[in-house]
Amino acid sequence: MTPPPFAREVPPDDSDSGLLAAGWAGCPAARATGDTAYLRALLAAEAALTRAQATLGLAPAGAAEAVTEAADPARFDVRSLAERARGGGNPVIPLVADLTAAVGEPYGAYVHRGATSQDILDTATMLVAARALDLLLADLARTERALARLAAAHRDTPMPGRTLTQHAVPTTFGLKAAGWRSLVLDARDRSTAVRRALPAQLGGAAGTLAAFEAYGAEDGAALTAAFAREVGLAAAPLPWHTLRTPVADLAGCLAFTTGALGKIGEDVLTLSRTEIGEVSEGSGGGSSAMPHKVNPVRSTLLAAAARRAPQLAATLYGCVAAGDERPAGAWHAEWEPLRDLLRLAGGAARDAAELVEGLRVRPETMRRNLDLTRGLIVSERLSAVLAPRLGRARARELLTEVAHRAHAEDRPLSELLATEPELKDMDLAALADPAQYTGLAGALTDRALERR
Amino acid sequence: MTPPPFAREVPPDDSDSGLLAAGWAGCPAARATGDTAYLRALLAAEAALTRAQATLGLAPAGAAEAVTEAADPARFDVRSLAERARGGGNPVIPLVADLTAAVGEPYGAYVHRGATSQDILDTATMLVAARALDLLLADLARTERALARLAAAHRDTPMPGRTLTQHAVPTTFGLKAAGWRSLVLDARDRSTAVRRALPAQLGGAAGTLAAFEAYGAEDGAALTAAFAREVGLAAAPLPWHTLRTPVADLAGCLAFTTGALGKIGEDVLTLSRTEIGEVSEGSGGGSSAMPHKVNPVRSTLLAAAARRAPQLAATLYGCVAAGDERPAGAWHAEWEPLRDLLRLAGGAARDAAELVEGLRVRPETMRRNLDLTRGLIVSERLSAVLAPRLGRARARELLTEVAHRAHAEDRPLSELLATEPELKDMDLAALADPAQYTGLAGALTDRALERR
Amino acid sequence: MTPPPFAREVPPDDSDSGLLAAGWAGCPAARATGDTAYLRALLAAEAALTRAQATLGLAPAGAAEAVTEAADPARFDVRSLAERARGGGNPVIPLVADLTAAVGEPYGAYVHRGATSQDILDTATMLVAARALDLLLADLARTERALARLAAAHRDTPMPGRTLTQHAVPTTFGLKAAGWRSLVLDARDRSTAVRRALPAQLGGAAGTLAAFEAYGAEDGAALTAAFAREVGLAAAPLPWHTLRTPVADLAGCLAFTTGALGKIGEDVLTLSRTEIGEVSEGSGGGSSAMPHKVNPVRSTLLAAAARRAPQLAATLYGCVAAGDERPAGAWHAEWEPLRDLLRLAGGAARDAAELVEGLRVRPETMRRNLDLTRGLIVSERLSAVLAPRLGRARARELLTEVAHRAHAEDRPLSELLATEPELKDMDLAALADPAQYTGLAGALTDRALERR
Amino acid sequence: MTPPPFAREVPPDDSDSGLLAAGWAGCPAARATGDTAYLRALLAAEAALTRAQATLGLAPAGAAEAVTEAADPARFDVRSLAERARGGGNPVIPLVADLTAAVGEPYGAYVHRGATSQDILDTATMLVAARALDLLLADLARTERALARLAAAHRDTPMPGRTLTQHAVPTTFGLKAAGWRSLVLDARDRSTAVRRALPAQLGGAAGTLAAFEAYGAEDGAALTAAFAREVGLAAAPLPWHTLRTPVADLAGCLAFTTGALGKIGEDVLTLSRTEIGEVSEGSGGGSSAMPHKVNPVRSTLLAAAARRAPQLAATLYGCVAAGDERPAGAWHAEWEPLRDLLRLAGGAARDAAELVEGLRVRPETMRRNLDLTRGLIVSERLSAVLAPRLGRARARELLTEVAHRAHAEDRPLSELLATEPELKDMDLAALADPAQYTGLAGALTDRALERR
Repeated sequence: MTPPPFAREVPPDDSDSGLLAAGWAGCPAARATGDTAYLRALLAAEAALTRAQATLGLAPAGAAEAVTEAADPARFDVRSLAERARGGGNPVIPLVADLTAAVGEPYGAYVHRGATSQDILDTATMLVAARALDLLLADLARTERALARLAAAHRDTPMPGRTLTQHAVPTTFGLKAAGWRSLVLDARDRSTAVRRALPAQLGGAAGTLAAFEAYGAEDGAALTAAFAREVGLAAAPLPWHTLRTPVADLAGCLAFTTGALGKIGEDVLTLSRTEIGEVSEGSGGGSSAMPHKVNPVRSTLLAAAARRAPQLAATLYGCVAAGDERPAGAWHAEWEPLRDLLRLAGGAARDAAELVEGLRVRPETMRRNLDLTRGLIVSERLSAVLAPRLGRARARELLTEVAHRAHAEDRPLSELLATEPELKDMDLAALADPAQYTGLAGALTDRALERR
Repeated sequence: MTPPPFAREVPPDDSDSGLLAAGWAGCPAARATGDTAYLRALLAAEAALTRAQATLGLAPAGAAEAVTEAADPARFDVRSLAERARGGGNPVIPLVADLTAAVGEPYGAYVHRGATSQDILDTATMLVAARALDLLLADLARTERALARLAAAHRDTPMPGRTLTQHAVPTTFGLKAAGWRSLVLDARDRSTAVRRALPAQLGGAAGTLAAFEAYGAEDGAALTAAFAREVGLAAAPLPWHTLRTPVADLAGCLAFTTGALGKIGEDVLTLSRTEIGEVSEGSGGGSSAMPHKVNPVRSTLLAAAARRAPQLAATLYGCVAAGDERPAGAWHAEWEPLRDLLRLAGGAARDAAELVEGLRVRPETMRRNLDLTRGLIVSERLSAVLAPRLGRARARELLTEVAHRAHAEDRPLSELLATEPELKDMDLAALADPAQYTGLAGALTDRALERR
Repeated sequence: MTPPPFAREVPPDDSDSGLLAAGWAGCPAARATGDTAYLRALLAAEAALTRAQATLGLAPAGAAEAVTEAADPARFDVRSLAERARGGGNPVIPLVADLTAAVGEPYGAYVHRGATSQDILDTATMLVAARALDLLLADLARTERALARLAAAHRDTPMPGRTLTQHAVPTTFGLKAAGWRSLVLDARDRSTAVRRALPAQLGGAAGTLAAFEAYGAEDGAALTAAFAREVGLAAAPLPWHTLRTPVADLAGCLAFTTGALGKIGEDVLTLSRTEIGEVSEGSGGGSSAMPHKVNPVRSTLLAAAARRAPQLAATLYGCVAAGDERPAGAWHAEWEPLRDLLRLAGGAARDAAELVEGLRVRPETMRRNLDLTRGLIVSERLSAVLAPRLGRARARELLTEVAHRAHAEDRPLSELLATEPELKDMDLAALADPAQYTGLAGALTDRALERR
Repeated sequence: MTPPPFAREVPPDDSDSGLLAAGWAGCPAARATGDTAYLRALLAAEAALTRAQATLGLAPAGAAEAVTEAADPARFDVRSLAERARGGGNPVIPLVADLTAAVGEPYGAYVHRGATSQDILDTATMLVAARALDLLLADLARTERALARLAAAHRDTPMPGRTLTQHAVPTTFGLKAAGWRSLVLDARDRSTAVRRALPAQLGGAAGTLAAFEAYGAEDGAALTAAFAREVGLAAAPLPWHTLRTPVADLAGCLAFTTGALGKIGEDVLTLSRTEIGEVSEGSGGGSSAMPHKVNPVRSTLLAAAARRAPQLAATLYGCVAAGDERPAGAWHAEWEPLRDLLRLAGGAARDAAELVEGLRVRPETMRRNLDLTRGLIVSERLSAVLAPRLGRARARELLTEVAHRAHAEDRPLSELLATEPELKDMDLAALADPAQYTGLAGALTDRALERR
């Protein structure tokens, strides 16, 4: 028998195509954050820098044209850059070498002139983040719209409210969907604010813009503004090589967004349990072992993303304490976690959009589940209503007693209460009807839907 | 010989007084976040709830007075509440029992009426956070002012710019202080925004306000607003039992703030190394072993806080994916980490204020360190200046050669360059003077100081 | 009306008594890790150090007696130490001052002689950890025994196996309990190994034992061994001021233990959902809002602990990269997270023991739930059995068809299959009986129970 | 001018080749953990499963041959599998489809028979981890050997011991290297133990092995053992779909290993600072902005890895609390973080090996730095020696006074003490010579080097 393939030698190819990334492979953010996307962004940053200098008369117009022309991603080899990145610890060093060679004489000297690697990589990262956030926001918008429809459609669909896993009091599916939507809107608002503020980076070797001055720049603000304009990002008041507010802001908004979508996932996972069955995913995933089984795959992937994002954000927050003018490690530790976060959040937004757009809601199952506790789910209301009539002590005593009987005899609470003489004239069936005890859920839903 | 004390039995007292908390014990935020502070906040929330109901005619004025009167922290035993919290999994259940007993008849029934434990504990947590943020903001303001003074005073004090631990090009201490200040202002802005938005929590058992309605409330928004007003917090559009945006926002702003102050700590630790000596803490800490030694204690504690905050924030972001109407664990896991974050950030703000107010800056040592590389720290400038004159290739070749000689012969770069015939007429001493190559640091500092 | 109490001034008392610590307040590990326990351990370490030196003739016997006598916890003020810890950044500095004063002449000079603060605090921390692990192990042993009983008692109790929240194939509660137990045994084994290896710390100012040598010690190994013996810990081959293997090992075993117990909690939370009801906690917690409701409180607290422990461990793992001979921050950042982990794991072990000892198991509900899918839960088996008879394609086609009908017509799968002529002679009722498709669960359980 | 390339459309290629992974791209572990390596491992697991069944007579020998033959990685398309993984949430489902088709009739039915996706993916992950750990261990062995050489060579090379960033007392570079080595050995021991225990996974749909029994298996242990043997891993006593000890153990040992190597990186970063200069990397990295600058790139990447690993481990520890028989999210969240950890640790091991093999040590600079404090670095020893002669109080007073003068007058401590009449006959130069106050560093180093 042939030896097991795994015992053969290590594969020559070490690239990733998303085999372990069911949560984000193929999502819009995936393409926007791949190595090729970073390469494009790095080249865009380099070209914008030369153009910005040309704008201010610090470089000839020919240089700007030559560099922009040469900065064609098709000419560059990502794998080779990746390998050579190791030497100096970042990919900009070999990229500058290749780009300078591509530009050739007489304008090669204008490539990267005055800049430091971090100027280019930080700017490229912000370009990538901007693109990824735009795509994320589009999927959040889809999600929000679908949730608004669900909330409106199910404004008055009663279902069990569950707390600490137990039926507590009734709620509505509309309120639940409105709550999900409010989280999505919170995520949208935070992501939008962060997106708008994403800055270009320009500081030179140690953040003083000194080389630019040596090459003739007199007005740092003008140079920074020109570069930001060329590259399509905000202008930062100071070089932020070790002032990492933009990265921390991204960390926060992406961890929150992933968590917010994870909340939806967790709820759908619970509500689609075999025993609960109140919702199901529109197109669940099959199983390799059981042909009959339909798995809540989108929710599963949302839950998985929400387990990972917080720790990635923690790494980024940890890098805020970055030493010196440019740090030895705190910067390098940001690159992959930030990309991972963009992907996780982007993938989650896609999954969430598909999940809520296709969600099947089963009001009749919700109604049936409301009766599982034989009326105990409205015991809070009965306490409130019976206390004035019977006195608090007697009301509590009576409710405790019938609660036990309802469970033991498997009879509805209202039926048992109806035998009490003092309660003869009350509409116990209505009072004990879970569907009639949804409180202010409808009004809360309406109000929440007013938010745009 | 007597047996070692540790072998005796376990101590009866398990409370903490800050013995392991050099970073925050005794700081303003410490007292604002102790168990007693939480007790007060819980009682404040309960009293406010009854008053809010009275305001809307849902409870008699006498009840509001009675509950407010009874909610006197001095009457309650924190330790006993802590022990009894275990049964139901939170401290509000025993507190409500004690408060109801304290109110007695006829108003005991109005205590906690309609609410769930989470309404009270979340509201109390926001009250505690509000107080702690106010104290934090005061220390951030002190820190910012001291940094503004340092930045202005040292606008033109040159020092080595360090990247990846190596001297890169000169910078100024003013620009460094301005950078620190910009982080503090970023922290202030984020903390201020979060502080303003901290909401009261009111939803009842499962977030529908149903019990309040059962007791007569018709307008949920009015009730929520009245409660928020009484308790001095913002009114939330929806109950947020499992919509944890406020907690996530706190996590983000506190992790960022602690990281931002940690950046200052890291820099001071480096700059006060024995070999560097460019700054020192005003009143360093002694050592138990070496009487002569002065440790940078404030910076050390800032660095320690910055190592912890991100992971605490991660726990809170992880709790955003909270299931059901009220979660089984995701809520409970928030309490201590959020308090820890408030304390770490609060302690760090105190330490940062003291650190920067007392910081000793040594311009002469900075100047001396600038010469350590024998002029190599300005090689970037020399490249820029010599290239047009010598051609890029020849300039690079010459600089590489004299760089090696400067190191080997321990002679200044300018001296070696002066022997080159082509450079005879240049003012090489000025060109190679690190103090004259601080780029646009001054202008950047000025601009940064304009931010208020 | 009186103003709300919260608006009054900040409470003077900032100590904690566990009000926010429902998961660990009052548990054995709580008392073993309080500030008083640390104080005792610090004093035990100081006394042991002087005794160790006396043993080797480096200090007079009278000094050993005097220091041991003076190191009486009752004489020391934790709060005052906590306040004074801030100056030098750790509590040992003021403790040494107080202990030296307590010893007085002529032996005061022998207090802490040759040591650094970290020697004492690290050793004390290991003493506290040792005690806390012993208590933890006792509760793990309780838990393990109860789980062994459950596994044996329910070796053949069928229940739905759930994957991705959906019924997959049947399993047994015995196998589930045996799996929980195997995790507890894994936690026990790892904790036991770590417990045994906990080392004393002795290195002096920078880990060279130089001061001890200056006071006469010639054999470092002998001194280290004597100290370790006096204090009851292992002797480390090297001072480990910045070789933090012991702390990392604690982090790993405590995070794993808390996660393992959290797995039990998660499963109990699911199985005790209102709709599932297969188990319930022996003594659930009440609700402040709904008198009827019985919450799975122990499981909730287990789940909460499991959400926090990993990030605390991350902070400790992060401190392994500790710079220099003793670090500025990486050491200080360990103290509180390590204590928190000991408490979380200790509290979780208590909760787990109580949970599994009191767990109510409902085989009849499990049996009922097995039928919820109308036989689909055994479709895997039916595929296996029908394929040889019908051919794979036809078997799959038939099963898919009857699966849809079983759901639509709410009839058992076996009943529908019985109408197929080719299957007439098969015992379809037995084949489709979930209770008869538990695979090798029984044998797996038996084997797992052989592990001790 | 042409528009900036970044504004063009999103790149079609979303794969990664390590562009952002300077720390691990191209390292041995990189190729061992790429998507192709996972594909091979998945195929190896599938083939081994069929072979194991054949071994026990549960499948024809022809099936084993056919599946092994068909499981040729070259026939499969990683990218296509990645895309199709999304539907069911894992890559095994499409892989089984493709492999079944490749096997064709009559043996296609034996592909994956009885197994669940998680059996295959978990087993493949352990195969990948085994390979990656082997590679890691080889680099740890290189690192250890180089450190042993450094420790022996510099057993008596004095250097400043630094605590809280300040010179404390002298130490030796040999002891420092021996400490680094002891961490590497700790990492090796933990990794070796974890490597040996890595288990195959086999449980079927819900961990009962039921389908295998349906296909004829009677002895679960024999089946598990046969599979483990075929695949070259340990046999687990129970299916571990939700008993994640192996993953947690990997998390712990990889986080520790990365942290231990990060400690070396942090120390080298400090010691190679421009002002300190006691060591430098053999081949530092260049800078894109400053031609003269040599960056400590290997150490920087070690420090960066150590900042990330703990949070990745936290995610894995968090997944220990995995619900049900197979979890919805807790499993999926493991895949990428575990791979990331293998890569970070593997890349760090490569960087550490290169770093320490090429490290340049400068004893003369260490010696020079020892004199920076003008003798204060031996004040601990002078206290010890002078106290018996002068009395403790007078000795302390004298040392404090001369310490101030030594600093103010820039004169050696020994010179100032020599003027004291009481000390006339002492060899103050020797006593105050830092090189003669390295304590027991030599003996500690020797003992540490005995560990193999």
